[in-house]
This record gives sequence, structure tokens and C-alpha cells, in this order.
Amino acid sequence: MLILVTNDDGVSAPGINALAEALRELGRVVVVAPDREKSAASHSLTLNHPLRIAELAKDMYSVDGTPTDCVHLAMHVILKDQRPDLLVSGINNGGNLGQDVTYSGTVWAALEGHFMGVPSAAVSLVDDRYFDYGPAARFAARVARWIQRRGLPPDTVLNINVPDDPDQDLDRFAITRMGYHRFEESVVGNTDPRGKSYYWIAGRKVPSREGIETDVGAVQAGFISVTPLHADMTRYAALEELKGWKEEGL
Amino acid sequence: MLILVTNDDGVSAPGINALAEALRELGRVVVVAPDREKSAASHSLTLNHPLRIAELAKDMYSVDGTPTDCVHLAMHVILKDQRPDLLVSGINNGGNLGQDVTYSGTVWAALEGHFMGVPSAAVSLVDDRYFDYGPAARFAARVARWIQRRGLPPDTVLNINVPDDPDQDLDRFAITRMGYHRFEESVVGNTDPRGKSYYWIAGRKVPSREGIETDVGAVQAGFISVTPLHADMTRYAALEELKGWKEEGL
Repeated sequence: MLILVTNDDGVSAPGINALAEALRELGRVVVVAPDREKSAASHSLTLNHPLRIAELAKDMYSVDGTPTDCVHLAMHVILKDQRPDLLVSGINNGGNLGQDVTYSGTVWAALEGHFMGVPSAAVSLVDDRYFDYGPAARFAARVARWIQRRGLPPDTVLNINVPDDPDQDLDRFAITRMGYHRFEESVVGNTDPRGKSYYWIAGRKVPSREGIETDVGAVQAGFISVTPLHADMTRYAALEELKGWKEEGL
Repeated sequence: MLILVTNDDGVSAPGINALAEALRELGRVVVVAPDREKSAASHSLTLNHPLRIAELAKDMYSVDGTPTDCVHLAMHVILKDQRPDLLVSGINNGGNLGQDVTYSGTVWAALEGHFMGVPSAAVSLVDDRYFDYGPAARFAARVARWIQRRGLPPDTVLNINVPDDPDQDLDRFAITRMGYHRFEESVVGNTDPRGKSYYWIAGRKVPSREGIETDVGAVQAGFISVTPLHADMTRYAALEELKGWKEEGL
């Protein structure tokens, strides 16, 4: 089994090392990850300038771009004609739950893998209490084995969020939908040493009241959350109303 | 009516000027856009360094960040307690159709406006034959008037794609879903003047056979495409299968 591993915290983050180590039990693991932290890179792609690849060790590469760039360079340059059997992105330092999923470089790297025909999953560690990536890495390996044996449903990427609890029961997982969860945004303004204004995007986690059927609620209740995602953002429920607009005079 | 306008082609792109001019017939237009091209920025957010705002003219600002950054700084700093009645992002130089939507800074800026409670739409000019932003700007103003009068369905952002045809009939529009459309990716490798390798992400448009019920197909058939989007990426069709996994031994 050939497994491509990437993330958005950068190639030297502890989460990606824990993930790669756990997956090595299943086959050859090739790590291709950003050379530095690229959190909140979403699905961004570098088109306006060239990218560099650095070979750090056997089967470990960094790219000076986004997670989605890494997937491109892994597939088209580093692995060329070898097709990975699986892509796993993570383990992210911090949950990717609710709307935060849309900003996540970790999750979009998995969706990019899926676009390229590779079964893909993203794995994140929720909350930073213990920074213990062990349970998340073991659960990722368990899911990887499952995917190898069973495959994924059509057009589906897995978004896995694991509570940061060293004693997390790996059988305590829930299949969920994307819930509602955002940071309460704010922007902090300040003045730099030369007297010019600057602004820093900040935010504060707002406790959520989502039910256990959502990613947010399941994790709050101590479950590992497994959400099937796809990239079809059509709001189907609105199609009929919009189709009436023409008659009504738009 | 207070209208916030942004884009991903940068504040000096012709598309954003055409859009702002057309929308000024409806009220006050405030432009807050990236200081340079930020195509394919997706929903990326700058968290690791501060941002600067430059006031270029009355109600026209640039930000040294992504389209989503622009929406944040517009709402929290530039407009502060003034709440825009509408956000329009564009007019993008190039279509945002099918999976390309997921990479688009233009579309995600509109989704970010929606996250902040502002009715939002993205407008793109498909193909670069004439670079005539007139029809798209007029259609955007027509939709803006409609939204002002009628509002949008709940949890819905509009993704509008207008064929680049100076004679485009503005009544010839279709309500569509996101279709399948991607560039056939490739990566071009080369050697820089110092003898080091670099890689450039490239791609080639693949003609699509999507039906007229999709954004891709509608535009190919000469229609303006209007797609309702949301940010819930749950693959609902896969939930039941995944719920069976536990019993089956995952």
C-alpha cells in the first residue's frame, strides 16, 4: 500500500510525524507537506509563482506552498506514475469542525486528493490540552485499513476529529454531519514601531449547542467524529425558489 | 443601500471597477479588495501576520491579504458599525464553474460575507474573448436590486457566471447546480538561472459534456448561470453507509 501524507501545520509538526509512523504499519508512506505552517490556507493553489521541492529524508519532502500545492507536486512530480492507494492529511493541531472546515488546509488537501481519484481522509486533534496525537494516529490507521479493505462511498472524503484525550476510547466514534461552529471574529488593531497601523485577524471560540449528530456536538460529547464530505456546494434546497424568480420578474 | 464590493483579481482590476460603477446606481459602494491578484486564494485567511489597509480614494481601500481577509477588515475595521446591505464579489476575470468554485477567492469572499450575515453574491466573466464586463455588471446590478426587494433564500449565496459576449441577452439566464469541470492538471518543471529546479502548477481546460442544468453546461449553451451555493459540505448520501461501518467492524 502506498500512502501519501500531508498537512497544513508544516512538515516538522508533531502531528504529521505521529500520523506517518502509525501508517507505516500498512505500507510505504510518502510525506509531502508545506515547509512551514499554512493553517487556514483552505483550498488555495499557487499559480502566480513557481514552487520548490526539498527532499528532507527518504520519502519525506517539503514544498514552499500550500497543502493543495503539496498534493499537486506529490502526484505530478514526486510520485509521478505511482498512484497512491490512500491520502491522509493531518494530524492537525486543532479541530476542523463546522464552518472551520471551509478554511482548513488539512481538509482541502484531502478533498484535492479525492479530486485526483485517491481515497482521502483528514484527521484533526481537537483542543490542545495534552497534545497527545497517539489516539488520533491509531484511529487514522484503523480507518486506513478499513478503507483499504472496503473503499469509501462514491464522492466521499472523511473528515475525522479526535478529542485530545490520552484515554480516548477508539470504539467511541460517531458518524456526523458538518455542524455550526465558528469563531466569534474580531480584528485587533495596533500601531507598529514606525507608527503605522496594522490589523490582526483574531477570534474567540464560542461554545456550541449543536447536537451529537454534528461534528461539533459529537466531539463535545467525547466522541471521535467521522463526517463524510464532498465538494458540491450547491444549495439544492434553494433551487426551486430561484427557478421561480424569472417568472416573478428578475 | 450600502454595498461592499471585493474581488480576488485585485483592487485595480477592470472587473471590480465595472462592478462598482454599476452598483453605484443603487446606493453607496465601498470597495475593499486585495492590493494585488489573489486568484485561487480560496477561503484562505491570514492568521500568522498582521495586515495593512491603504485608503486609495473615497470608499476605496486595498488590503495586503486575501479576499476573505478583505471581508474581515471591511466589516470589523473599515465599516465597523455600519452593516452592508449586500456584498458583491467580482467581476472575476474568468469563470468560476464546477470544481473551480472551490479554489475561487471571488466565491469564498461572498460565502464569508454570508457567514457574517450579509446577503452575498459572486459574479464572474466566463472566457476572455472580449473582456467586456458591461453585461455582467448590468446583470449584477439587476440581481442586487432583486435581492434588495426580495432577499435571498435562507443559507444561500449566489454564484453568477456571465458569458463574455457584448450582446449577451440578460434575460437568458438559467438557475443551475455546480457541475463537473476541472482543469486537466499538470506541473511544468524547469531549471532556474542558478541551476535549481522549480515547478509551476499548470492546467488545460477540458471541454465538458455537462447538461444545461449545471453551471458549466448553461454557460456553454450561452446562458448566464445563477447557482445557489452554501458552505455545508456534508455528503449526506453517504451518511447511512458510514453508520453501518461500526456494526461491520470498523
